[in-house]
Amino acid sequence: MRKMRRKGLASMAVQTVETTTTPGTSVDLGPASGLSCRECGERFPLGPIFACELCFGPLEVAYDLPVGDPEALREKIEAGPDNIWRYAPLLPVPADVASKPNLNPGWTKLVKADNLARELGVTGGLFIKDDSGNPTHSFKDRVVAQALEAARAFGFTTLSCSSTGNLAGAVGAAAARAGFRSCVFIPHDLEQGKVVMAAVYGGELVGIEGNYDDVNRFCSELIGDPLGEGWGFVNVNLRPYYGEGSKTLAYEICEQLGWVLPDQLVIPIASGSQLTKIDKGLQELIKLGLVEDKPYKIFGAQAEGCSPVSTAFKAGHDVVRPQKPDTIAKSLAIGNPADGPYVLDIARRTGGAVEDVNDEQVVDAIKLLARTEGIFAETAGGVTVGVTKKLVESGQLDPSLTTVVLNTGDGLKTLDAVAETSQATATIKPSLDAFRAAGLA
Amino acid sequence: MRKMRRKGLASMAVQTVETTTTPGTSVDLGPASGLSCRECGERFPLGPIFACELCFGPLEVAYDLPVGDPEALREKIEAGPDNIWRYAPLLPVPADVASKPNLNPGWTKLVKADNLARELGVTGGLFIKDDSGNPTHSFKDRVVAQALEAARAFGFTTLSCSSTGNLAGAVGAAAARAGFRSCVFIPHDLEQGKVVMAAVYGGELVGIEGNYDDVNRFCSELIGDPLGEGWGFVNVNLRPYYGEGSKTLAYEICEQLGWVLPDQLVIPIASGSQLTKIDKGLQELIKLGLVEDKPYKIFGAQAEGCSPVSTAFKAGHDVVRPQKPDTIAKSLAIGNPADGPYVLDIARRTGGAVEDVNDEQVVDAIKLLARTEGIFAETAGGVTVGVTKKLVESGQLDPSLTTVVLNTGDGLKTLDAVAETSQATATIKPSLDAFRAAGLA
Repeated sequence: MRKMRRKGLASMAVQTVETTTTPGTSVDLGPASGLSCRECGERFPLGPIFACELCFGPLEVAYDLPVGDPEALREKIEAGPDNIWRYAPLLPVPADVASKPNLNPGWTKLVKADNLARELGVTGGLFIKDDSGNPTHSFKDRVVAQALEAARAFGFTTLSCSSTGNLAGAVGAAAARAGFRSCVFIPHDLEQGKVVMAAVYGGELVGIEGNYDDVNRFCSELIGDPLGEGWGFVNVNLRPYYGEGSKTLAYEICEQLGWVLPDQLVIPIASGSQLTKIDKGLQELIKLGLVEDKPYKIFGAQAEGCSPVSTAFKAGHDVVRPQKPDTIAKSLAIGNPADGPYVLDIARRTGGAVEDVNDEQVVDAIKLLARTEGIFAETAGGVTVGVTKKLVESGQLDPSLTTVVLNTGDGLKTLDAVAETSQATATIKPSLDAFRAAGLA
Repeated sequence: MRKMRRKGLASMAVQTVETTTTPGTSVDLGPASGLSCRECGERFPLGPIFACELCFGPLEVAYDLPVGDPEALREKIEAGPDNIWRYAPLLPVPADVASKPNLNPGWTKLVKADNLARELGVTGGLFIKDDSGNPTHSFKDRVVAQALEAARAFGFTTLSCSSTGNLAGAVGAAAARAGFRSCVFIPHDLEQGKVVMAAVYGGELVGIEGNYDDVNRFCSELIGDPLGEGWGFVNVNLRPYYGEGSKTLAYEICEQLGWVLPDQLVIPIASGSQLTKIDKGLQELIKLGLVEDKPYKIFGAQAEGCSPVSTAFKAGHDVVRPQKPDTIAKSLAIGNPADGPYVLDIARRTGGAVEDVNDEQVVDAIKLLARTEGIFAETAGGVTVGVTKKLVESGQLDPSLTTVVLNTGDGLKTLDAVAETSQATATIKPSLDAFRAAGLA
């Protein structure tokens, strides 16, 4: 294996392991026993690597999970903190993770959405898993929290990422709390509001003259260069750990339902990683005996303006053809989703589907959710709610079954999407006569 | 008493009681036994009234609290839901409140702020009570949740308020979830972003041609008119119930500290109601035996541009002279704070103080908190953190004691305050040479 290390992507990714840790010995990431290639199954010791040296497939965390006594495990979890660290026994983190400085995201509300259910004609129980309640108001806090603990374990001192929005703030905030330096790369022409949200945490924020692809290319170069030594890129060289954060959504949903699997889940697709990790989390709960095994269906949701996975699903293809994104759902606008094929596989295996909605439907869905449940979602939440509506109408989603819909971010971050259609009902002079005339009493 | 009902403010406020409820009989608000005048002590049955018929003093909720078995009460609370309803036995709400549709705010994080403590030189334990984690990202969700339950008990069908920001969104969202109609009144020239945040929940949003005082005057007229029948104005005719929501901040802080009183609290002052109710909550915990009695100091925080209470405190006055607000801390910009004299009283009785900081210090404090703890606070949070810093420097706040500082809102709502000074560190071409030249590696 050693000989292969000098080649391409994998060698670049491996390089830092040798300088900062002794793989497999000094790294304590709790139940994580190593990394395994999702394509060829090859195993690697824990380290800041993300691609298989043999086949370049994506690596993911492998575990020695605490099987055998589900009742004891359930009790341990329930006695844990009100955040993702209650699931520390199932995550790539040391057992004492809750005592380290971290934003401690998770344990967000699972809202029983009876008003929305009535409007959509869902009778079997409709729930919104509302991740806008996280510290920086998106699900990104979950994945960044995992990457941060991996960065700590590998001796990194700078936390980094490329981002166009939510991730930049999540990394900046997490690094600030944990005492890491942060250096986040963004396209230089990002909207002012997003720049402020990312810059306020005081880390380095570097505008790159180019588009998001240029930013990513630059970051890949930096990881392979001595300049990037000691740098943990949450969504590149720490990606295997980062991704595991999404499993906590599966754990929380089941625990909040009373340790029961939902029948149907509607999950947004950007890279597709969140959806595949939620499936992984559900499978783990079954294996551990924490929930009773039963069929569940996973539905993926995309915006029409960036729908490579739903296009492939509908066409019956196994290959996802890249698209050039053009949608208001910018946090989902990944035209070439890395986990696309895995998403297709999961949707088909579970009997689910992948569907998309257009921008107008996204806006309508944001306002529908706000009007019925008082939850103001980011555009990604408009995508999942809009797709849920469409799936009920088409009969693909069974309204008599328990359904969980994810809202992964906060409407305050994408105010523009609803600005035009969310205005005052009336403007009047301050008099009862004027109010009477407006017909609002 | 009956004869006095036709006079002024009190008669106006009382009017709706007689049409919608039979006072004292049909209203179930749990341990709430009535209303009492804070000035003369006169008692009234529970109803949508807010001013004493005898002396026009403010009314507040009186209780039959569950004294006698603190251990059992503590266990009951700890077994309750992860929101304010865990304290239902101490609030003016029915025992089954958690089963009703409500945004279920509260149980927000109490963050141990070790990095900030280091910067400020606080050694005795510094905590941020971070209410940006509430459903609409401000503490207003707590008070609106109480007002909503009172509105339900009194048979109201419309939830209303006058607002210039946080409250409008909190009322719109809560009403949406609970199936109430909402009608919120705002000055017609409010910033676009705030209009959108209030309008997205789909209730009526009425712009009033005039300033905030005109809006308030109009609302008072509406309450006294048949047009306003069935309307619950959360901060007017439901104010006594509304205010009680702030007690939950005191309960949560003590429970999260392990059922221990903090030594020092720094609380923002707008109307002053929040500070007085937190003191009320702490006193209740002592009376109930849920915490051990010990001295605590309460510090009030204002912005220099609206500092009527700190001005009076420093001058040794008992009377608060109104000011015309001019500060970026708009959520605290009440020039004539109703509870000002009570705040002075509490600060002096507990050995605390009232202090203020200027707008520049507010911005610096927002960024200090973000940089050290990854918490992005609204301007009101900049006021409390800035005042804490000032109080440590002046020696009024003892750095060797446990100190809790409130952040009552989210930075996403007041982005403008930090926009100018939160920008990219550098803008570079996408090359390692350019990165090296920028000196950021």
